[in-house]
Amino acid sequence: MSSKYKAIKEECFEANIELNDLGLVIYTFGNVSAVDRANGVFAIKPSGVPYNKMKPEDIVVLDYDTNIVEGSLRPSSDTKTHAFLYKNWNHIGGIAHTHATYSVAWAQAQKDIPIFGTTHADHLTVDIPCAKPMKDSLIEGNYVYNTGIQILECFKERGFSSQEVEMVLIGNHGPFAWGKTAAKAVYNSRVLETIAKMAYLTLQINPNAPRLKDALITKHYQRKHGKNAYYGQ
Amino acid sequence: MSSKYKAIKEECFEANIELNDLGLVIYTFGNVSAVDRANGVFAIKPSGVPYNKMKPEDIVVLDYDTNIVEGSLRPSSDTKTHAFLYKNWNHIGGIAHTHATYSVAWAQAQKDIPIFGTTHADHLTVDIPCAKPMKDSLIEGNYVYNTGIQILECFKERGFSSQEVEMVLIGNHGPFAWGKTAAKAVYNSRVLETIAKMAYLTLQINPNAPRLKDALITKHYQRKHGKNAYYGQ
Amino acid sequence: MSSKYKAIKEECFEANIELNDLGLVIYTFGNVSAVDRANGVFAIKPSGVPYNKMKPEDIVVLDYDTNIVEGSLRPSSDTKTHAFLYKNWNHIGGIAHTHATYSVAWAQAQKDIPIFGTTHADHLTVDIPCAKPMKDSLIEGNYVYNTGIQILECFKERGFSSQEVEMVLIGNHGPFAWGKTAAKAVYNSRVLETIAKMAYLTLQINPNAPRLKDALITKHYQRKHGKNAYYGQ
Amino acid sequence: MSSKYKAIKEECFEANIELNDLGLVIYTFGNVSAVDRANGVFAIKPSGVPYNKMKPEDIVVLDYDTNIVEGSLRPSSDTKTHAFLYKNWNHIGGIAHTHATYSVAWAQAQKDIPIFGTTHADHLTVDIPCAKPMKDSLIEGNYVYNTGIQILECFKERGFSSQEVEMVLIGNHGPFAWGKTAAKAVYNSRVLETIAKMAYLTLQINPNAPRLKDALITKHYQRKHGKNAYYGQ
Repeated sequence: MSSKYKAIKEECFEANIELNDLGLVIYTFGNVSAVDRANGVFAIKPSGVPYNKMKPEDIVVLDYDTNIVEGSLRPSSDTKTHAFLYKNWNHIGGIAHTHATYSVAWAQAQKDIPIFGTTHADHLTVDIPCAKPMKDSLIEGNYVYNTGIQILECFKERGFSSQEVEMVLIGNHGPFAWGKTAAKAVYNSRVLETIAKMAYLTLQINPNAPRLKDALITKHYQRKHGKNAYYGQ
Repeated sequence: MSSKYKAIKEECFEANIELNDLGLVIYTFGNVSAVDRANGVFAIKPSGVPYNKMKPEDIVVLDYDTNIVEGSLRPSSDTKTHAFLYKNWNHIGGIAHTHATYSVAWAQAQKDIPIFGTTHADHLTVDIPCAKPMKDSLIEGNYVYNTGIQILECFKERGFSSQEVEMVLIGNHGPFAWGKTAAKAVYNSRVLETIAKMAYLTLQINPNAPRLKDALITKHYQRKHGKNAYYGQ
Repeated sequence: MSSKYKAIKEECFEANIELNDLGLVIYTFGNVSAVDRANGVFAIKPSGVPYNKMKPEDIVVLDYDTNIVEGSLRPSSDTKTHAFLYKNWNHIGGIAHTHATYSVAWAQAQKDIPIFGTTHADHLTVDIPCAKPMKDSLIEGNYVYNTGIQILECFKERGFSSQEVEMVLIGNHGPFAWGKTAAKAVYNSRVLETIAKMAYLTLQINPNAPRLKDALITKHYQRKHGKNAYYGQ
Repeated sequence: MSSKYKAIKEECFEANIELNDLGLVIYTFGNVSAVDRANGVFAIKPSGVPYNKMKPEDIVVLDYDTNIVEGSLRPSSDTKTHAFLYKNWNHIGGIAHTHATYSVAWAQAQKDIPIFGTTHADHLTVDIPCAKPMKDSLIEGNYVYNTGIQILECFKERGFSSQEVEMVLIGNHGPFAWGKTAAKAVYNSRVLETIAKMAYLTLQINPNAPRLKDALITKHYQRKHGKNAYYGQ
């Protein structure tokens, strides 16, 4: 494959394969994209192509207005959401969307996932937000594009930074996650699914389980992400 | 294998193997069939034969009145239900029956599966129907044939089209799913099992979770199945 | 391996391996035995030997009074229960004991598993019995032998036949299952675990789910086990 | 690898790999250590290194005051807890920490895991303790070291022996388990996760499930661990 966009096509391809290998998607219920900021384009999974038949050259490259720059297949049906997020959040490098079971269950329940423990606090300091279902007028309009708006408004309302909170649930739909790379977006999707299952079980065991206290939230987040972080190499 | 019915026997064989590989059946708790409309026959799994020992030539071919046309083994004990559906719904090409765990749980609970999210709406616009258990007189009579009647009556009562709703739960028993091919019937069985698990978890998290609103139902179904569908290649 | 008991040692070995491969045990939390009625002996797993290190020649052969007839290892710690059942139920050919998760959960909950559906009725016509925890005096006495008595008394009280009901839960402990062969005992252990999970989920979805009605119980059991059974080859 | 500490580095490496293979950790959410009492040092997983990329020579060796004795990578972020436990409990040979799902759920629910059955009693005679979340002043101080103190105080308050009770839940965080070797610590982590799942399901089926009675607790624990134990070879 010789292409100006070889690097992001391969990054995108591998992240999609990983998403499937981790059991976060069945059939074609998910997609990952990777961005090339220098060229102002992103690479995304083609729509409805099974993971075991997809090849790196099937990946579609588009600009932020969703004009196809390279690729002969139709891009993911969620492409406009990805494009909108890349356009508005210029620090992110990859986005993943899944219909993973526990994440979807919380989205369908229309509930934020409460921060109950340090697994959660190792990644973010707030409840994982569940964006309210869209107004009917927006659904009937440019729905996929408006899903991007829905995410941004949710973050604005709550005063969240997309650099600190790298995941969201769309009410009635499912999760989006992002990060500095496509691989990090997949990582965040898996972390979200794990936290979603833990929080579900916690409430089954103790419906009155208290949220994690502030001192622990701060300690765990800071030791991984703070100035004096001592996690990792 | 040289046979006039080679194509459907192989289609049927592969779909049965897939059903097992996906973990939708244990032992011999399921069966898939494939129809040959031109010849007025269908191919179905032999009864009680383990998946790992079954060969394509073991597949049994029957007409719609369940007369064996080819094959030396006894056909699936559910054969009369398949035959009845092929006879009455001439657009379907394959049927699958499983005892998959979450689908069976809803069937045993005698509850329709509410439409809670877009994963569901991507495939159908209504709650997944749970057909009421049969009257005793019908159970004691031609039970397996009557299961077919039970499905048809459920769809008639609710005004459902078997082209738009490709799955049903039989109260106290389990799911049947169908589609244009045997592979599509297996696909629908897996989608049903996934939706069944998601809906179960949703109600555990929020017993008052609202049904998906109409605008989202329509939008998701239409983008995959409508005139201007933009999903897939 | 040259031994008068080669056949049951191999049957026993393979059934134990299968139990582990099916995920019904972790570590050494289970055991299967196979009987040789002609010679009045049975073969059983050695105690505490990991499945991946066990060889057919490690299997221990004992008479019904638990005298070791062949083998240099100590037999399963549950050997006296197996011996007691072989002595009292002369039609059974194999016994399996596990700590499979859902079966144990019902045993710990001290509840019979209600018959909710046809998956259950395909195998037995009654709720799966949970034997009451033993009296303290019996626990402090010959505990493992008394577990056999506990099972027999449970069946006597309820008027169950061990040929029709091939599984039981020991309150606070876990399941025993049996059958004409060791392989059938393993089959029944897996069926029990599946039914246990389905029944658990059923009650979560609908705490008032009704038991399966008699006509369906009879129909499903008879089509697999009755005089005019039409299931299998 | 030529090193004075080769044996514990390999023991530590293999135990960490096993922890991952058993599905008790995702990504780098866990760590195992192994001690060398003669030399007064222990070996531990390097921080944030993925299991599939870790090599035996990456393992870090430290003394009980957490001075690095051998190794060029940064040790696990939980190292000070391990060191504290080795210093205070001189009979233990290995420690494992995970974020396994069901164990974490109980920790987040801030509940001890009640002893409901013989699977539990085969390993310990008391409810699995959940240590209370730390005071804010301790969290803000030497947090990881203080986690060790938290465990010791929990055991002191309850009068538990760390030789009889080889596992604990840290409220809001997750489990620690230990044993005579690193492999035994991993074994105990898996047993704890299994017991945690069984207890969760037990309470879902019967919210009033009684604790296991004393006679059964004693019998099962003694037959595996007592003077006259008859389990194993």
